[in-house]
This record gives sequence, structure tokens and C-alpha cells, in this order.
Amino acid sequence: MPSENSTAEITKEPVVKKTSIAHKLAEKQQEISVTEFFEKNKHILGFDSRSKSLLMGIKEAVDNSLDACEEANILPDIFVRIDSLGDEEYKIVVEDNGPGIVHRMMPNVFGRLLYGSRFHALRQSRGQQGIGISATIMYGNITTGRSAHVMSKIDGEIAREMDIVIDTKTNRPVVSNDRAFIWEGKEHGTSIEYYIKGKYQMGKQSVFEYLKNTAIVNPHSKVTFIDPNGKSFVFERATDIMPVKSKEIKPHPEGMEIGDFQKYAQNTVQKNVKSFLTNDFTRVTSRLANEILTKANVSPDTKPVDLTRDQCKGIVKAIGEVKIMAPPTDCLSPIGDMLIKKGLMHVLDGMRPEYYAPPVTRAPKSVNGNPFLVEAGIVYGGDIPSDGQVTILRFANRVPLLYQPGACAITKAISNIDWRRYGLEQRGGKGIPYGPAIFLVHIASTKVPFTSEGKEAVAEFDEITNEIVLALKLCARSLKSHLNKDEKKRKTRAKFEIVQEILPQIAEKTSSYLDRPVPDLDMTISKIMNVIWVEPTVENKKKVRNVTYTIYNYTREMRTMRLHAKLPRESVNLSLFGGENFIEMNDEGKTTWELKDIPPSRNVSIKFELTGDMADTFNVDEIYISGINPVMVMGADALPGDWGIKGMEIVEFESDLITEEDEETEEAEILDDE
Amino acid sequence: MPSENSTAEITKEPVVKKTSIAHKLAEKQQEISVTEFFEKNKHILGFDSRSKSLLMGIKEAVDNSLDACEEANILPDIFVRIDSLGDEEYKIVVEDNGPGIVHRMMPNVFGRLLYGSRFHALRQSRGQQGIGISATIMYGNITTGRSAHVMSKIDGEIAREMDIVIDTKTNRPVVSNDRAFIWEGKEHGTSIEYYIKGKYQMGKQSVFEYLKNTAIVNPHSKVTFIDPNGKSFVFERATDIMPVKSKEIKPHPEGMEIGDFQKYAQNTVQKNVKSFLTNDFTRVTSRLANEILTKANVSPDTKPVDLTRDQCKGIVKAIGEVKIMAPPTDCLSPIGDMLIKKGLMHVLDGMRPEYYAPPVTRAPKSVNGNPFLVEAGIVYGGDIPSDGQVTILRFANRVPLLYQPGACAITKAISNIDWRRYGLEQRGGKGIPYGPAIFLVHIASTKVPFTSEGKEAVAEFDEITNEIVLALKLCARSLKSHLNKDEKKRKTRAKFEIVQEILPQIAEKTSSYLDRPVPDLDMTISKIMNVIWVEPTVENKKKVRNVTYTIYNYTREMRTMRLHAKLPRESVNLSLFGGENFIEMNDEGKTTWELKDIPPSRNVSIKFELTGDMADTFNVDEIYISGINPVMVMGADALPGDWGIKGMEIVEFESDLITEEDEETEEAEILDDE
Repeated sequence: MPSENSTAEITKEPVVKKTSIAHKLAEKQQEISVTEFFEKNKHILGFDSRSKSLLMGIKEAVDNSLDACEEANILPDIFVRIDSLGDEEYKIVVEDNGPGIVHRMMPNVFGRLLYGSRFHALRQSRGQQGIGISATIMYGNITTGRSAHVMSKIDGEIAREMDIVIDTKTNRPVVSNDRAFIWEGKEHGTSIEYYIKGKYQMGKQSVFEYLKNTAIVNPHSKVTFIDPNGKSFVFERATDIMPVKSKEIKPHPEGMEIGDFQKYAQNTVQKNVKSFLTNDFTRVTSRLANEILTKANVSPDTKPVDLTRDQCKGIVKAIGEVKIMAPPTDCLSPIGDMLIKKGLMHVLDGMRPEYYAPPVTRAPKSVNGNPFLVEAGIVYGGDIPSDGQVTILRFANRVPLLYQPGACAITKAISNIDWRRYGLEQRGGKGIPYGPAIFLVHIASTKVPFTSEGKEAVAEFDEITNEIVLALKLCARSLKSHLNKDEKKRKTRAKFEIVQEILPQIAEKTSSYLDRPVPDLDMTISKIMNVIWVEPTVENKKKVRNVTYTIYNYTREMRTMRLHAKLPRESVNLSLFGGENFIEMNDEGKTTWELKDIPPSRNVSIKFELTGDMADTFNVDEIYISGINPVMVMGADALPGDWGIKGMEIVEFESDLITEEDEETEEAEILDDE
Repeated sequence: MPSENSTAEITKEPVVKKTSIAHKLAEKQQEISVTEFFEKNKHILGFDSRSKSLLMGIKEAVDNSLDACEEANILPDIFVRIDSLGDEEYKIVVEDNGPGIVHRMMPNVFGRLLYGSRFHALRQSRGQQGIGISATIMYGNITTGRSAHVMSKIDGEIAREMDIVIDTKTNRPVVSNDRAFIWEGKEHGTSIEYYIKGKYQMGKQSVFEYLKNTAIVNPHSKVTFIDPNGKSFVFERATDIMPVKSKEIKPHPEGMEIGDFQKYAQNTVQKNVKSFLTNDFTRVTSRLANEILTKANVSPDTKPVDLTRDQCKGIVKAIGEVKIMAPPTDCLSPIGDMLIKKGLMHVLDGMRPEYYAPPVTRAPKSVNGNPFLVEAGIVYGGDIPSDGQVTILRFANRVPLLYQPGACAITKAISNIDWRRYGLEQRGGKGIPYGPAIFLVHIASTKVPFTSEGKEAVAEFDEITNEIVLALKLCARSLKSHLNKDEKKRKTRAKFEIVQEILPQIAEKTSSYLDRPVPDLDMTISKIMNVIWVEPTVENKKKVRNVTYTIYNYTREMRTMRLHAKLPRESVNLSLFGGENFIEMNDEGKTTWELKDIPPSRNVSIKFELTGDMADTFNVDEIYISGINPVMVMGADALPGDWGIKGMEIVEFESDLITEEDEETEEAEILDDE
């Protein structure tokens, strides 16, 4: 800036002193190695308290094992053992059946920060930064002075093992005892063994909790855990089906910075800017590339390397102005509604909630070029304690987040929703609400933006926060509609009880005065009520749930209708189904019954039995009807249009469920809600 | 681990495929430069939203300027200008009058992450990591594609300027246009000019707010700010006295990890372990070193480099068992009570609170070998809105923290105190309390453990959290005792009003019935009340506060006493003091008045005038008495024993203020409180 503006005030000290200060400072200037930095800032990596440090190391190792197995299409079988050596020292072993690690790579993978295979890849994985496991080995060495021992075997090759320490001054591995060995009975896999100062604890933020939650959202994994007391826990594999493998994609152009675009342009192998746009980015068609370049006033034949700053700026601006398709979904691997329910149930730990809001999986969006999607679920009421704040379960790329809730976009999104509208208590419409509810939120992304290298909380970006809010509000709407329905049902039931109790009494009294027979009041009651009443009853036996729906026709006419429910397919004993009412069950477990000609004032029942692990995921309140005007029905909703199965006949109804076409308007509406 | 324990399950895929996967993965393994890492994780550096990014860059530059000036003993004069270039692009200039930067160091200081002078130094400073300013230049370049321009001049040397960009692949500066020039009118200093995408906003988390709060806690600085509309704001220097320069110290041995100790031992120049302990660490005396080595069973003559892991472990363990003095204070630079008050007042922005709790500065403690101290202040009531959560002001090493409150140890410590005991509303005794209060907390440390490289929140360590809790509870106790006193005063006043209203009426009636003169009731009233009543009144005129204390003697005897208050010395017009009551004012502004022989049922007044900037810092409720049993006095407290000035005569009283001897018991008591 021009010197005349300077208002510098000079103290009256001798010139020589100040000169020497700048030079003295210069002498102290020096490079800081990334290892030294993290050595002094261990807490940024998640190694702050002793109990957390113990968990962090195991988390890093297990996350890596799961990633490696999935990449190699192997059903993960993970073994974790903690031995206490006294004085807060622990020995940790984490072993997997992954593809193994090439011998020459072992030192760098385990002994060097910022070294990895997944950093530059645009696809969903747990590890990404190339920091976690090396940091664990570094922290273990700092706190105990001991080295880590690593073994790895590739199928068909000889196993290798070595001891590894990190030289923090240079961020390079120091290897000793490197040798080949026969790993008996092992075909392929990796084992890491390290020592660490820590504190073993049970409860909310424990190794056990982490492994349990990991097993829940990774049902294709088997996890064996031996705790410091030698007690063994096995989280069995719940399914042999691998999750759909997320695909690596090219960057999505939306929300890119000029500098990033310049760098891509400098490094591309494409000969002209048009093929650069269509080949190096996802979702840019030839038509779209033309539109962008026309808007930016850049010739399609320009060499990418020749683009000026202003041209790049123009292209980035034009990208923001054209309509580009959302990033493809197949780079992401959502948990899915069944597993979300399962996750919630595990936390419930036997408590019976009153209501499960149907879990929501949002369509993918993108932030800074990285596709992401949000899933959410809510359970409410019943045995869930109602005197505290709601419980919040956070997951990112199928990894449970146990620490730093206050720093997390998930917590913040929840705090910014006015939950009073959805029947929860919340002072001033801000903050974590109070009430008998558990929220689950999962963020899947090719690059989850964590607030720190310890990957404990998701950073707050508007794009992400909005999606969390939308997902939760959709769940909350279901909850609210349930509570409203509940209220309506309660009132109708009250009316019912009055009518059923008082009318017969009046009839009896009047009849006795007149000395005439008591008339049949059923039709009269039906006339007053004019509803179809669907009443579920559940009998929970050990490992078996007997479900019965009784359908009362309190109208004056004969009624025919169909009932629909989505059942956990593997839990239903189809042979026990039968009966004249059952029509069909499709591959997704969507089931249809038909109730023919129920006379007025009469009822019919349908019954079925659920067994096995997934039996719990069925929510008896999620029952739908077709073939009848749904406003007449209490206790069941109209069959949603997006269910993909055919109802009995199309009757007019208002649905409060969301179809794809409605989604955009819906979103605007929901966000405007407040 | 032994192979027989392995339970690996092998999928039935061809061997060749799995082999190739391990090797395919190996091909992708690569080093990630620290710059690439932060380029992809900009939000970790604080560059997430546009508005925050604009602030972050300025914050980094200003923090560096303040550090450099203080290091060189120069009163800082800092100039900040923001120009809007449209399209969310801004040009930022930050210029200081610091010592300047040596020419050959300029590229690395501004163009390389993890490069700095303060990382290895154990003393309080704002910058520490060698990341901030280079990250700003990198982010500016990514978002606008432009380079930064840096100018610097050392006193007596020619000025130098250059353009700098960071090569993110290698984390090295790329310099252009490097040249010497005549910087007219400038004797020494540095100016940085960069372009950045951002969003300029006013309000809570704005550049203006940051600069204002910075000026408040750095009253020795002058800060000039020109906003994008060309409007100029000058935060004038409030004092010419530099804060006491914090000294560099050696590491404190407490809480050290074995690995760290091993590293120190490997790198020391000391010949034997005893001199290693006494010379390389602070607070280790020769006697203490002997005690440690005896406990650890290590001979004092052992060469440090020969220490085994087990010996190191023994020494670290012994260090934890002996009593080592707390780290010296002079490496830290607290804000001090006057400036804490001032800071609170600025936030009050004209609102008059009912009560300022006397700010608390705790003695230094240490965490991971780094000394730190906590300061806290609370204002309460009056015009402060009472319908929301309390306002929390966070500072670390004299830098205001504006973002990430939810992740910060300060917020968490506040949430864990049961504020219901101290007169604030709080559901279930957890969470941010509600009520008309503002809390200020400052953490000063040779190494503030921030939760991320963006330095927005302090990480949660038990040692730090405990100190925050203690400091706040001490403030809260004063508040509580004020509220109790207030309640007592309110009750006494009610009694008073009844006595003063009803007694005369009864007397009058009775006299008129009996036809006798109305008796003088003053003595009777005094007999019933039996208190000395100290009543402050304040008249706030433009820039002048007129304070009057009226002392009513509602006892039956003649009373003599002294009044004491700590006045902001520079605000008191001593010539206007005079009067027979004034006795003296010391250097700290501690003032004494003597009130001689006040007859029963009479009153006397003392008056004074406060002018200038610091006038507001005087809290009329902080008035003390001596020479009289304080239980007789309403509206003033007993002169605290630690005030260091002599009261009139020692009378017995119970003080609720803390003296140094009491501190340890006090702490235990406070922490046990809940």
C-alpha cells in the first residue's frame, strides 16, 4: 500500500536493536515436519484423553481393515484383542482377512503420515487421509516407547513381518526385524500389534460401543473382540451379501473454485477445453459443455493449458449458471432403511418404542465437487426415557462417530430445527430437543469433511446441513402425523366408548320402561361412528412376534378393501401365511391381503408370525389400505403411490408421503417451514 | 498374533484376483503433501464458508503482526483494508509497523505450510503452527487464481517486495517480481496484499467484531480498519504500556510421555541424567532431581543417551510422584481484571448491568508440559436480555474466538456447571444456562491446544476444563452472594419502609388521641433496624459519572468507619476529591475514606467524579468497609484481607473472598460443590 497512508508510530529505541530482531527472528524460522506438528497436537488426531486414545487406535485399524476387505470383495472377518499390561499400558492386536499389503509398501503405510491410496480417489471409503494408522503407531510409541509389529500376507505369497517406528523429525518409517515367515492357516490378511497408554472403559464412548455400532451398520462383517479381562464377544455376520461396491467417479463440476479448475486444466491430457470438460468431469455432456463455453465466451478448441485466469473464472461462473445433473449415486453406499431401523433397535436395547418414523434416504447432492447423501431415522415414545435430551446417533461412511458431538454439523442441524412443531420440547425452538426420542443420521460421501484429522465430527457446510435438516424434517413429519393420528384415534376411541356404553344403557332403560325388547344397536352405533377401525395387536414371545390386525366395519355398508404392509421377508414364515385373505408378497417383502365383503358392524382378522433377527424391524403402525376412501379408515394410511405395488382400485385420497415429482416443491416448503 | 487363533473365512474367488488386488492397491499408494491435504480439507484451516474465509485470512495476518510487534517491543499500529471487486472477490491489505522480515525468509514465511519461528518455543504467542498466513495465501490463490503480494522493510535496510504463490504438490513457494524498492515514509514493517473469495458481513462473527474484540484485549495496539464501503474505523491505542513480554521457558516435566522423554534424552547436550533433568526442564532443582532418580532407581551419572526404555519409564513415573512447583507465570500474559471488565463492557454496548462479578485470574497450571492459566468474568442483570441463553465470550492468548463454540472446552465447562445454584435457569443442571448474563473466559498458554488448525476452539483436557470451571465458579459465587445480598437488602428495605411508614402514623394517631406532641421516632426506628445502610447512587452524564455513597447510621450509637474502593486511577479527578473524608489513594487506585462519628439516625455522603474511557469499569457495588462489624452493614462488604491496604481496625468477620492460603481447600470444596 502507498506509503503516505502509513501511520506507523516508531518507538524511540536504537535502530540497531530492531534490525537485530528481524534477523534474530529469521534464525528461528524453520521447517516443521508434519509429524512434529501432530506430535505436538496429538489431540487433533483424536489422541487426547487416555480412554479416547485407546479407542482411536482401534478405530483406525478396524476402518482400514473394512476398507481393504471391501475393496478386495472379501467378507470381512476382524479380530480385536486388548491386553492390559498395568500402569495404563495396553497391547492391542487388530487382525483382518483382507488382501494383505505388498511388502515394500508396509513401512510407508504404517510408518509415515500423509501416505495412502485413497486420498485422491473420489469414492466412498472410511479411511482417506493416510494419517490414522501411522498416527496410532506414532502415539503408541510416544506413550510407551515401544515399536509396532506388523504382519501381512498376500494370497499365494509368503507372509512378511516387521517392527515399525516413525522418525518424527523426518516423517519416515524406521524398520527393524524385517523378515519373511510362514503364517500358518492364514491365506491372506494383515495384523497390527502395538502398545499404547490408555484407559479401558465400558459405556457410551467405549471400544465395545464402537465395535457394536460398526457391526450394526456393516452387517456383512464378523467382528470378534477379546476385552482386557479375556472375555470374548462375537458380533456375527448378519448377511453374506457385500454392500454394493461404491464406484470411483470423476469430480463433479459444481461448486469448484477457480484455482482448482486452473490446476485441472494445467494437468489434463485432453487436447481442447471441450473434451477436457466432457472427459475429466462427471455429468458434463457435449451439449452442456457447449452451453458452458458459449456462456463463458471461450472457444471449444482452446487448449486447456492456455486458458487465462479470466477464462477459467468465466467457465467456473458459467458452470454455476447451467443445470447439471446431480452426481451419480453409485459412488456412495447408503446404510438403507432396514439397517437404520436395526441400528436404532440396538440402541433401544430391548426398550419398546411407540413409533418408528420410516427412515429417509435423500438423493445425493454435492459439496465442493464431492457427492454426498444423508440418511435419517427417528424412533419415539414407548419405553424411551422422556426426561432428558433426545439421543443422537451419528455415522459417517458407515463409521460410528462417538466424540465431539458439539462440533458436528449433525448436532447443529438438529439444534436449528424447531422441534416444538413436531411434538418435542425445546426451549425457544433452538438447541437439542427434550423428549422420548432417538435420532440417527448417516452421511455418506466420497469425501466426508471432518472438522479435524481425528474424524470425530462433520464440518458445517450449508449444503450438508440443509440435507440433514430435510431428512430429519421428513422423519419428523411422519412422527407428527403419527402423533396427530394418535390424537385423532384417541378422540374417536373416547367417542366410541361413550357411544358403546351409554347408548345400550339408554336403550335398556327405555325398553324396560316400555316393556319392549332391547333393540340391536350395532347399526345405530355404526351410523354414529361411520369408520373402518384397524387395530393391531402384537404378542412378543422369545424370538417370535405374533401380529394380528383386526378390522372392524363400523359403517352401514358392506366393505371390501386391501391391506398392505412391508414385512422383513426373511422373518416371515410363508407356510404359516395362507388363509383366504393373503394375496401375495413380493421380493421386497411388500405384502397384500384382501378383505372381502365385511358386513356392517362385523370384523375380520389377519394374523402372521415374524421370527429371527429382523423381526423387530417391522413397525405395526406402517399398515396401508387401498380400495376404500382412506378418510373413513382409522389406524391405516392410504397406500402410497411410490410403493410400486398395485392397490385394489384407485380411490381419491390425499397422501402426506412424498413422491419424486413433488420433491423439489416439497423441499422448498420444508425449508420454508419455519 | 499366532495363526491358530485366526478365524479367517475365505471367499471362493480365484487366487489370482486377490493377489492382483493387493498389488493394485500398492500402485495407488503415494505420498500426500501437507499442502494437498489442506487444499482438500480447507475447512480444517477455518476456510469453509465465504464469510468465515474472509475473516480467517485477516485474523491470521493481524495475529502475526501483533506477535511480531510484541516480540520487537514495538507498540503495534495495524492497518486493515478490504476492497470489494464484485463476484464475491475481495482484495485484502494488512500492514503493520513490526520489525520486518529478512528478505530470504519472506518466501518460506508466506509460501510454505508448517514453517515458522514459534513452533518450538515455549512461550505465549498468537501464532504457533506456521500454517495460518501461508494457508491464507493458498486459499486466496485457489479461490481467485491470483498471487499474493508481500512487502517488508527492516529498519536501516532497503524494502523488498515480491509476489508469492504456493505449489501445492511440493509445499514450496513460487516467487515472482522479487525486487528492492523505496518504501517512502516507512521505517520498518510488513504489508501483505491478497485476493480471496469471501462474503463481507457485519454482526456477530464479522471482521469488525474480531478487530474490535482484538483491540479491547490488546489495548496497546492501534487498529485502523477501512471496510468495503470505504468507511474508516480507528480503534485507538488505550495505553502506551506494552504488555509484560512473556518469557520463553523450558518444558515442565509434569505429564510428559515416555516417548517424549526418550527423545529429549537422545538429543540433550547434557553429560549425565541429573544435569539433564535440572538444566533441560523448568522447576527441577538438584534436590528434586536426586529424589526422582532415587525413586526411579537410576544412577545420576547415567549418560542420558544410554537410558533404557524401562529407566525412562521409571523416571517419568517418579516425576508424577514427587511434588514439583507449578510452572513460572512469566511465560504467560494474562488480560487482567480491568481489561476483562472493559471487554465485557464493550459487549454490553451501553446496556447497564446490575452486577459485575470481580474477574478471576487463576494461578498457572500445566497440561502436557505446557503452562496455562484461565481468567474469567461475569456480568449480570440490568439491561442484559433475560430471555435467551447467556452470552459467552471466548479468548485464547488474547485472540477472540468467534467460531465453533460447540467444540470448545470453554462452552463444555460452562455446560457442565450446575448454574441453578448460582441463580441462573438451566434445565436439569446441564447445558448453556439461560438468563441475563455475559461470561468471558480467557485461556493463556505457551501452547493452546486448539481442536483444529483453524484455531477456533480449545480442545477439552481435564486440566483445562477444571481450571475454567474453578474460575467461573469463583465468579459465580460472587454473583450468588450479590444476589443473596440483594435479596437481604430488599427484605431489609421492605421492613424499613414498613417501620418508617407505620410507626410515625401510629405515633401521630396516638399523640392526637392523647393530645400530646408527636415524639421523635428516629431513635426508635434505629433501635428496630440496627444497621448501617450504604446506598450508592450514580448519575451517568455524557462521559462523566457522578458517584455518591450515602451512609445512614440506623443504630443507636455513634459510629466511625472507613470505606474502601478500587477506582480506575486515570479516571479520577483527584483535585475534585478533597473533603474531610478522603484519606488516600494508592498506585492501584485503591482508595480510602474515613467517616468519623456519625451520630445515630444521621447520614453522611461521599462523592466523586469519574471521567474518561475507564470510568465505566468501576462497579459501585464493590465497596468495602473496615473499622466496624460488617454484619451490621448493608450494602458494603468487609475489606478483604488480600487487598494489601490497611483497614481501620481489625474486627472479626467472615470473608467469602479467597486468600491464597485458602486456595487449595477452596478448590477441593468448589469442585465438590456438585
